[in-house]
Amino acid sequence: MAHVLSVSCSLSTSTGSRSISSKPSNQFPSSASVNLPISTSPFKRLAFQTNYTSQKRRTIYIKAISTSQEPIVQPGSGSHETSSEPSVPKKVMVIGGDGYCGWATSLYLSNKNYEVAIVDNLVRRHFDHQLGLDSLTPIASIHNRIRRWKSVAGKDIQLYIGDICDFEFLSEAFNSFQPDAVVHFGEQRSAPYSMIDRSRAVFTQHNNVIGTLNALFAIKEFGEDCHLVKLGTMGEYGTPNIDIEEGYITITHNGRTDTLPYPKQASSFYHLSKVHDSHNIAFTCKAWGIRATDLNQGVVYGVRTDETAMHDELCNRLDYDGVFGTALNRFCVQAAVGHPLTVYGKGGQTRGYLDIRDTVQCVELAIANPAQRGEFRVFNQFTEQFSVNELAALVTKAGKKLGLEVQTISVPNPRVEAEEHYYNAKHTKLVELGLKPHLLSDSLLDSLLNFAVQYKDRVDPKQIMPSVSWKKIGAKPKTVAA
Amino acid sequence: MAHVLSVSCSLSTSTGSRSISSKPSNQFPSSASVNLPISTSPFKRLAFQTNYTSQKRRTIYIKAISTSQEPIVQPGSGSHETSSEPSVPKKVMVIGGDGYCGWATSLYLSNKNYEVAIVDNLVRRHFDHQLGLDSLTPIASIHNRIRRWKSVAGKDIQLYIGDICDFEFLSEAFNSFQPDAVVHFGEQRSAPYSMIDRSRAVFTQHNNVIGTLNALFAIKEFGEDCHLVKLGTMGEYGTPNIDIEEGYITITHNGRTDTLPYPKQASSFYHLSKVHDSHNIAFTCKAWGIRATDLNQGVVYGVRTDETAMHDELCNRLDYDGVFGTALNRFCVQAAVGHPLTVYGKGGQTRGYLDIRDTVQCVELAIANPAQRGEFRVFNQFTEQFSVNELAALVTKAGKKLGLEVQTISVPNPRVEAEEHYYNAKHTKLVELGLKPHLLSDSLLDSLLNFAVQYKDRVDPKQIMPSVSWKKIGAKPKTVAA
Repeated sequence: MAHVLSVSCSLSTSTGSRSISSKPSNQFPSSASVNLPISTSPFKRLAFQTNYTSQKRRTIYIKAISTSQEPIVQPGSGSHETSSEPSVPKKVMVIGGDGYCGWATSLYLSNKNYEVAIVDNLVRRHFDHQLGLDSLTPIASIHNRIRRWKSVAGKDIQLYIGDICDFEFLSEAFNSFQPDAVVHFGEQRSAPYSMIDRSRAVFTQHNNVIGTLNALFAIKEFGEDCHLVKLGTMGEYGTPNIDIEEGYITITHNGRTDTLPYPKQASSFYHLSKVHDSHNIAFTCKAWGIRATDLNQGVVYGVRTDETAMHDELCNRLDYDGVFGTALNRFCVQAAVGHPLTVYGKGGQTRGYLDIRDTVQCVELAIANPAQRGEFRVFNQFTEQFSVNELAALVTKAGKKLGLEVQTISVPNPRVEAEEHYYNAKHTKLVELGLKPHLLSDSLLDSLLNFAVQYKDRVDPKQIMPSVSWKKIGAKPKTVAA
Repeated sequence: MAHVLSVSCSLSTSTGSRSISSKPSNQFPSSASVNLPISTSPFKRLAFQTNYTSQKRRTIYIKAISTSQEPIVQPGSGSHETSSEPSVPKKVMVIGGDGYCGWATSLYLSNKNYEVAIVDNLVRRHFDHQLGLDSLTPIASIHNRIRRWKSVAGKDIQLYIGDICDFEFLSEAFNSFQPDAVVHFGEQRSAPYSMIDRSRAVFTQHNNVIGTLNALFAIKEFGEDCHLVKLGTMGEYGTPNIDIEEGYITITHNGRTDTLPYPKQASSFYHLSKVHDSHNIAFTCKAWGIRATDLNQGVVYGVRTDETAMHDELCNRLDYDGVFGTALNRFCVQAAVGHPLTVYGKGGQTRGYLDIRDTVQCVELAIANPAQRGEFRVFNQFTEQFSVNELAALVTKAGKKLGLEVQTISVPNPRVEAEEHYYNAKHTKLVELGLKPHLLSDSLLDSLLNFAVQYKDRVDPKQIMPSVSWKKIGAKPKTVAA
């Protein structure tokens, strides 16, 4: 058991405004019960080498005062007891719910009347501090985000701040909330970050693999009917010269046939960590009867969802830097500030892409249609394929309409990847469950570009170029220059 | 840099004897320079929950005084400088060189005039202490083993005691020894151990995956021409319904063809850790030009090799217990003590097997014929396939010749695995390099059974039955009863 210090505290109350500030800004009286279990996870030193160490060893549970009229599934009401058929999932734990995909998903699910708990160690914000990066959009603290959501939508989101690599913390959060489904976004999710230096490579694989193992053990031990919805990546497959299937491929070889896991060829320590997760999860489905869905997601673009657009304090993050920024979002910000679009190498690299409004939709579809006990289900979660050159052309054209003169440069590819290759990946399973894709359109590009123009004064041009080389990664810790 | 305390000490000298004792027993004057860098690895708590923690944080380098007349490759002589073609490999670092396969391999290589350094944290001996297990055969300390080898064969083996998950330690050992090849046996290698409880599952995956990552970074940073010879396992493939190839399979799908990594279906957290390693290594071969050979080894049997038979103090360990004992060795010990052979389930489980005399031969063949820069080579390292029932029948027949009445019982299978299945795995690449297999013969079974009879008074019957269940593994730490 964790050692728990119970603290009651009042948070300051002031008149709400639409500006972002570091002070709590609410239109409702707030108080919170804060519990501080002393984290005992032994795996922190690599990640946290600053004074932050002492701070992160606190686990903070905050629950906004409930004024909701909706029925709440009580612990022990049967929603997570073992059965061959799951009851209708109501309670969803979103691990990594403060991140780019996680925050949008948490609000979407809450708005759909799921009871949502966010579990997050806030390390994504810490990476920004360490690397001197920042979201293009100003984002509120997770506490203010949740309070604002309560005031805007009238819905509670529970918050468990802590590290799922710390099993004591995860056990307490799991047993306290008793989820019907766990959506696991809580991983270090940047390929370049994992290729900065040895300690970040080790951190990424440790954090992601052990965090997922702990989530699997928590489900087995405390709620074995709970459905794990795990964010994988299309990058697990690499770029094979044959069609990419959804998780499995039927192979006929020397006159015999079997359906086997699709071969994996990941190309960064981050992507590899997701491959490791997939193998671990598949095993626990078989050995323990875990129900799991692996969402092999493509590259996500966009920033606004219906819910995050409701208030400035609900705004999602948008990364444009060389470490966390992904292709289309990065190009839009580059176009907005007059920086040439940075195509890595030849630009023939082709990947699956999707709008963040489809990310949230896909996750909800997976939750609403759970995997069977023992089933390891793999969905390829993207809606369209583009090459980098195609994206650059689309942004150039959209920019012209807005009067922006957009140029493109080829920069030496910092990654090790094929720059011209065959790519054809299946993605029908989520459509069969009801996904209505938001395909990339002129209007989305317009709105994303306008968004980037709106915040262009916040852009740090030094962060735009790629700074991490796949080949030059060294064993020594890399310090980012000021 | 590690903080290094330099200590000079003399070890006691006495007349050698063939009995094993805890006191140093040498026929040669010995002294050693002992350096104690303070280990700073942050990943120890899960594995080491006892007072051992403070002990293991010392790194001990011991080099016996050299009286060898053989030429020694000096650091800086060029044997590990970058080149497109490797020079003839002379210096081999054996990580895990105190273990079952590692010790036999170290002596074999030393006898073949390779300059050998053993790197080991001795955690395998610690597992025995924690779980109340012991080798059937009495084994000398690693220090006495190395001194005895010097007195018997006149050859030096260097010793670096420490944990490769501690990159400072590994860097020092690597830079001090400057190997041409690294043979990596240094992993937690028991499937049942990895399935005891959550903390052992996490330990296994952390220890194995991060240790291998560190080895890859050490090679990239300090000796990029060095050849990594990594022990994988045939268990990475599982039991697919098609033929198992050596690492890769050519797939024709929807009219297109590619050669891809063979799909992996491992069935314990241990086997999964090897799958993770294989993916990580393959990536670094591609991204960094590492040269690597993955030896997907079958189940090893036997105990005596030419070198370990030279003196009792060189004797190898032999595990018969339910955690570390493997099928054929375990059956011989069971037959020797009159315990029924324990077949798990139906006994149709078929695997590749090999004599430990072939393990050492295969590793040497891989070292002597290095992979090219950037090549990730996979060899299936076994010589024959047997089902568990076939092994039981062979041991029963051999026992009868020795006057042993051998019975067989089926016990509930503690694992999750197919008990009747197709199995046909290729294993030609090592034969093409020159492997002369020691096929399982009556005389080997006789000698193994006689060995087991010789030491049968050391058998603890309580350790024979399987004690670890794949399905019942829990999140709570499991204490082994006295």
